[in-house]
Amino acid sequence: MSKQKIVLAYSGGLDTSVAIKWLSEKYGYDVIAVALDVGEGKDLDFIKQKALQVGAVQSIVIDAKEWFAKDFLAPALKANAMYEGKYPLVSALSRPLISQALVRVAREEGAVAVAHGCTGKGNDQVRFELSVKALHPDLHVVAPVREWAMSREEEIAYASQHNIPIPVDLDNPYSIDQNLWGRSCECGQLENPWAAPPEGAYEWTRPLTETPDTPVEIEITFHQGIPTHLDGKEMPLHQLLSQLNQIAGEHGIGRIDHVENRLVGIKSREVYECPAAVMLINAHKELEFLTQTREVAQFKPLVEQKWAQLTYDGLWFSPLKQALDAFIDETQKYVSGKVRVKCFKGHATVTGRDSKYSLYNEQLATYTTDDTFDHQAAVGFIKCWGYPTHIYANVHCEKEEQNETLGRTLYQANQPIG
Amino acid sequence: MSKQKIVLAYSGGLDTSVAIKWLSEKYGYDVIAVALDVGEGKDLDFIKQKALQVGAVQSIVIDAKEWFAKDFLAPALKANAMYEGKYPLVSALSRPLISQALVRVAREEGAVAVAHGCTGKGNDQVRFELSVKALHPDLHVVAPVREWAMSREEEIAYASQHNIPIPVDLDNPYSIDQNLWGRSCECGQLENPWAAPPEGAYEWTRPLTETPDTPVEIEITFHQGIPTHLDGKEMPLHQLLSQLNQIAGEHGIGRIDHVENRLVGIKSREVYECPAAVMLINAHKELEFLTQTREVAQFKPLVEQKWAQLTYDGLWFSPLKQALDAFIDETQKYVSGKVRVKCFKGHATVTGRDSKYSLYNEQLATYTTDDTFDHQAAVGFIKCWGYPTHIYANVHCEKEEQNETLGRTLYQANQPIG
Amino acid sequence: MSKQKIVLAYSGGLDTSVAIKWLSEKYGYDVIAVALDVGEGKDLDFIKQKALQVGAVQSIVIDAKEWFAKDFLAPALKANAMYEGKYPLVSALSRPLISQALVRVAREEGAVAVAHGCTGKGNDQVRFELSVKALHPDLHVVAPVREWAMSREEEIAYASQHNIPIPVDLDNPYSIDQNLWGRSCECGQLENPWAAPPEGAYEWTRPLTETPDTPVEIEITFHQGIPTHLDGKEMPLHQLLSQLNQIAGEHGIGRIDHVENRLVGIKSREVYECPAAVMLINAHKELEFLTQTREVAQFKPLVEQKWAQLTYDGLWFSPLKQALDAFIDETQKYVSGKVRVKCFKGHATVTGRDSKYSLYNEQLATYTTDDTFDHQAAVGFIKCWGYPTHIYANVHCEKEEQNETLGRTLYQANQPIG
Amino acid sequence: MSKQKIVLAYSGGLDTSVAIKWLSEKYGYDVIAVALDVGEGKDLDFIKQKALQVGAVQSIVIDAKEWFAKDFLAPALKANAMYEGKYPLVSALSRPLISQALVRVAREEGAVAVAHGCTGKGNDQVRFELSVKALHPDLHVVAPVREWAMSREEEIAYASQHNIPIPVDLDNPYSIDQNLWGRSCECGQLENPWAAPPEGAYEWTRPLTETPDTPVEIEITFHQGIPTHLDGKEMPLHQLLSQLNQIAGEHGIGRIDHVENRLVGIKSREVYECPAAVMLINAHKELEFLTQTREVAQFKPLVEQKWAQLTYDGLWFSPLKQALDAFIDETQKYVSGKVRVKCFKGHATVTGRDSKYSLYNEQLATYTTDDTFDHQAAVGFIKCWGYPTHIYANVHCEKEEQNETLGRTLYQANQPIG
Repeated sequence: MSKQKIVLAYSGGLDTSVAIKWLSEKYGYDVIAVALDVGEGKDLDFIKQKALQVGAVQSIVIDAKEWFAKDFLAPALKANAMYEGKYPLVSALSRPLISQALVRVAREEGAVAVAHGCTGKGNDQVRFELSVKALHPDLHVVAPVREWAMSREEEIAYASQHNIPIPVDLDNPYSIDQNLWGRSCECGQLENPWAAPPEGAYEWTRPLTETPDTPVEIEITFHQGIPTHLDGKEMPLHQLLSQLNQIAGEHGIGRIDHVENRLVGIKSREVYECPAAVMLINAHKELEFLTQTREVAQFKPLVEQKWAQLTYDGLWFSPLKQALDAFIDETQKYVSGKVRVKCFKGHATVTGRDSKYSLYNEQLATYTTDDTFDHQAAVGFIKCWGYPTHIYANVHCEKEEQNETLGRTLYQANQPIG
Repeated sequence: MSKQKIVLAYSGGLDTSVAIKWLSEKYGYDVIAVALDVGEGKDLDFIKQKALQVGAVQSIVIDAKEWFAKDFLAPALKANAMYEGKYPLVSALSRPLISQALVRVAREEGAVAVAHGCTGKGNDQVRFELSVKALHPDLHVVAPVREWAMSREEEIAYASQHNIPIPVDLDNPYSIDQNLWGRSCECGQLENPWAAPPEGAYEWTRPLTETPDTPVEIEITFHQGIPTHLDGKEMPLHQLLSQLNQIAGEHGIGRIDHVENRLVGIKSREVYECPAAVMLINAHKELEFLTQTREVAQFKPLVEQKWAQLTYDGLWFSPLKQALDAFIDETQKYVSGKVRVKCFKGHATVTGRDSKYSLYNEQLATYTTDDTFDHQAAVGFIKCWGYPTHIYANVHCEKEEQNETLGRTLYQANQPIG
Repeated sequence: MSKQKIVLAYSGGLDTSVAIKWLSEKYGYDVIAVALDVGEGKDLDFIKQKALQVGAVQSIVIDAKEWFAKDFLAPALKANAMYEGKYPLVSALSRPLISQALVRVAREEGAVAVAHGCTGKGNDQVRFELSVKALHPDLHVVAPVREWAMSREEEIAYASQHNIPIPVDLDNPYSIDQNLWGRSCECGQLENPWAAPPEGAYEWTRPLTETPDTPVEIEITFHQGIPTHLDGKEMPLHQLLSQLNQIAGEHGIGRIDHVENRLVGIKSREVYECPAAVMLINAHKELEFLTQTREVAQFKPLVEQKWAQLTYDGLWFSPLKQALDAFIDETQKYVSGKVRVKCFKGHATVTGRDSKYSLYNEQLATYTTDDTFDHQAAVGFIKCWGYPTHIYANVHCEKEEQNETLGRTLYQANQPIG
Repeated sequence: MSKQKIVLAYSGGLDTSVAIKWLSEKYGYDVIAVALDVGEGKDLDFIKQKALQVGAVQSIVIDAKEWFAKDFLAPALKANAMYEGKYPLVSALSRPLISQALVRVAREEGAVAVAHGCTGKGNDQVRFELSVKALHPDLHVVAPVREWAMSREEEIAYASQHNIPIPVDLDNPYSIDQNLWGRSCECGQLENPWAAPPEGAYEWTRPLTETPDTPVEIEITFHQGIPTHLDGKEMPLHQLLSQLNQIAGEHGIGRIDHVENRLVGIKSREVYECPAAVMLINAHKELEFLTQTREVAQFKPLVEQKWAQLTYDGLWFSPLKQALDAFIDETQKYVSGKVRVKCFKGHATVTGRDSKYSLYNEQLATYTTDDTFDHQAAVGFIKCWGYPTHIYANVHCEKEEQNETLGRTLYQANQPIG
């Protein structure tokens, strides 16, 4: 009787290599390894071979950079997605893609289960499992690392017994994840939130003391919220991101140090490097300020916050997420134009923005004699705008309790006068 | 018969100097000039004399720095107030204070009206008039500059005729306002949002090319959301702000370039320098991340956005503003501790945060063997957290319409596999 | 030289009849009258003739019931739109349609201006003028009634002089507006918010003392958020609304008495009758509870509130409104199924809801032995869900300040025990 | 060696009676039973004896009605708390109180653990356990019913073996919980959301066919958001609630039928009867509309929604909840006055509201000649309010893409004209 198949998200590292063997030994699965390149610069050939070497019955590698940029990063940019206002959702964006790939392979290969290499205290386990449930609710999910509960020493011993190669960088104190949208780093000295992140926690960005002393100015062209040209040269998004990560990283742009609230209920301290993401979100917002009305500018942040929250919390594939995307897409129709960004000493400073859909009207805004704004309109505006305040004050000043009203602050502030 | 009195917010500049004469000539008021120092470093003696010289019957000057810091900037900091996520509300914070002072003087001196020097297209006119309405609904408000509609040339001619001194910096292309919380600059070349702000638009902050090549680290101690010590030395908030503006300005921190949505309906391009404000809001947020629960961290931004909006829109003295403050004050009870900030090349980087109320728990967060987190709990958590998604997928995958469901993205993405 | 044309929203009443003459006399316009039936049951032929009789050069009447139901009421229903949670936006929904018609006629007839009959203190003037600006920014808008400032007596005198017929119901104390979505009534005795609305304020709904003593049950079928069948019989929305207004009105359903906040800054007391609207919003929500996930159920109300606010505030034709609609439409894809409603004594009680997209899962929900819910999962769920609270309590109970923490309520509540 | 003590929330029913024995047998605890009356009309003496009879070492009963009304229901009323806009949070409000009582007894008696009788799929287990964690993070929580996983038959057999009396109403198909704020009912026929709730599911409210044919009008006086007088007679809140439940129940007020989203991830169908709660929330809102400014009226619903969510989700004792309460309390300072309510045929209709803090201004609102509203102010107001729309339309109508802009709807609607 043939064995049942399981599809494993394979990274090439120790945990998932051990998982191949463990899934086979413990549950008798035939393991299909799937490795994806979402921009971390993996050696896919090496990984493909390694999976087979340690026991996978099949090893699939996918260059998913374009897919990732188009279906996951473009929406994130349109949403200016920053979890807790700080973290551009690096890993949270790749997990649903990987899950999607696992499910697709499972369907094609007739597998009954999928597996991921997450522990039990991170967010990624939730993202993997909810994405899989959303796309294929009948598929079983196994989490070997969470389940086996081996210590590092036991795991190494297990690897040795089973002829699984031990990676050379095993003593790296950090836990790293990276893709086109950035690089995350946790553990080690970072676990003390009072300690400054050591330089060794960073890899994509130069320290400010080593960035060039001459600024670089670049021009980014957006079409409907998505960057399409760099300095006038059209290129696909994933390629543009690679180039921006290079340029911005050299100028030290995009370091983030965050004590964040995990979905599983604890706080963790993480360090991120997101050169392209930070620059693009910044530039994108500036073009939005130019082309969107005040009402959109005031409401979209609520949608953005929820979008980031859902994505962080593993609900990428969910009806609310789709509805938020519909809202956001509608707001992006005229977010087209160009933004000039100066890269210098860790800053991606927007120094100019231009759009044929610009709602900035110099004739209304100017204080020169070209002014066409109706200054007397303000009188009526203030009257109506102020009615609620005025009526409230009238009512409350007539009452003896007036000291408890808005006026209170005034009468009690004992400032010297004259 | 004695004349009626009006209390004028006096700056010492051309507009309000002309206004003294104009209010007297046009409406027959006795003008009481009130000038306040909210940190812009005015020569109050000079201003006091000038008001009398150009015709005020009384001239009052008030050092309002402490008042401003305590009653207006402290709440803004606790609210992390940034209009549209970018502008720390410099002028919007001083207007209610000035209005409060005008109303108080009007009460003490028996005046029937107050006056301000705003034009008809800015936000400040709204802030002045709504604040006055809120504090003294029966007081009449006059806006001479909005009303007289003189051109610059006519105004200068009027001044000459009435022996009003013409300031020497009249050809300054910019319109400036400044106080302890920052400096705003508009007009001139800034009116083109594609043009980079010229260096001349800045005064408080050095350009990055001229900042020191050595970082400075400072330590700020907060008590219940308010900074109380700088490098361990206790000082009142207004003094701490002065020092931080100095230090942070020297390192080029706090430049902001914004195309913003005004309350009167138009977009304008403004440049701000807020060295202390930017640094403190940044540091304050970090201490909040450490000491507030996830639920507070997720909801407070909505309150903050509304707080900034109300303040920008002139509703400082309003019941909603008071209720938002009550919410915010409650969240600040344990935002106490210290933050280490590195000032360097325009960055105020928080490199450490510490509090006895820290909710970061290293034993739960660590990936070392000290870990006390219950990894198996995640299994149950994911099950319940994922039920809505799981049930949804179950229902929709059974339907023939499944291609329209969450799975759609999957089946249609035609990525190369293997 | 030919005269310039203006397009007037004509109701057939005194104000707009006088306006035809006044616009012609005062500004020399050729007036084109446009009257629409949005379900108020107007005699369009009579109105058409009357306009010509009092001086319009052209008189256009439009049966807009289907247009209104499809383009304005369907979106309102999908948005469960209730301004301030109470008012289904009756007039606020017809104003943009009328404006759209005015603009279209203006384009076709080459008119340079449009006119409406609103006074200066209502919301409708804002809705007309903003809709016109949005659709045709160059068109001039005239508001004769707001501008002429005649008293009722002067207006009648003016009408008499110009042979304008005086309507017989001129002493009706109420100001009425009605369409397929309901009937609004203000003025008269209603201006005292302590006074109960007199029966004379109502017309569409029977008083509870006169409703049938036998309930009627109806079944409404929805497709993607829109009702398509009544008791299994398919019909267009505007027809379904007419029937429901009839049935529900007979059972006294849909009376609303509201002290509301107007956009122009004051509170007014209004009475509404919205039999069909109240019933359908109620039924629609029940189907949403059945078919939408928890996350959608929690976020959509924020979108709904903003939608109602924008519509009330005259921003129907605005980019934010379009984006909110995109969100809402996405949430309606599976709001299909049927709802059983019992009409009785002023209640439209939903007694059953069913959908093939129902997310209610009896096997998970049941307390019988068919239960498939994993009860042990709750243990892990509670652990993770409770971590923030648990950690917070741990930190704060260790502090001497514990009396100030969450525990405070406990220790200070001096309840008798035992 | 003495046994360890556990404090059990004891209801007198089968589950918690069996739990007394089971906790003693399985874990060797000495069980202290605590029963509270939160308004369900329990026979506390009987329950006290029964606990001892089945093996509790100590039996404590507490009349908690006043405590419940003051500390839990008053805040809920000020928050107009309705989970998902429908459910006034009956059980969700009593659970934190019971937890507080358990913790207090545990401290006084030196117990090491507490226990509750919830299963693993409801919300109440979460509310108990999070409340206990919040108040006493070191206390262990045991959930016997969730843990023992006995079938009903096994449980009855266990009871028989241990001489635990079997309640006579054991074949009641419903699961009931009740307190001063209402009565909840689930299970049985209700598990089919298409089935109308049978009359047997209701107990507190008469069916509409049996309510009096004469309305009753009552007058409720509020002080700072809390009802203090009924028809002019002052009484404590818990007593006022009892009377209102009586009166309103007789008139059939307060039935709710809801398919709700549970925190544990599933939907369940529940039937509630909340006569007093529904009436009071309704009346309270009306007084708020009269006395609160527009800005408060627009923002408070967001706070209310979050308040209800947190309470439903077990986070009563949490920092965010406290901050929301601070906001709400601030908004209640002037919610004082009286409301007239007509009880009739299931309706609690507010027919009048009055307050000395009323912000309704008849002189501004009236359409009589007493009108003091400045009608011309609207012109300026509309100009400024409309600028964003106007500018947007100007920009987009100039573009060739105009068909894609706001105007699109116009040009494409092919309605017949004329």
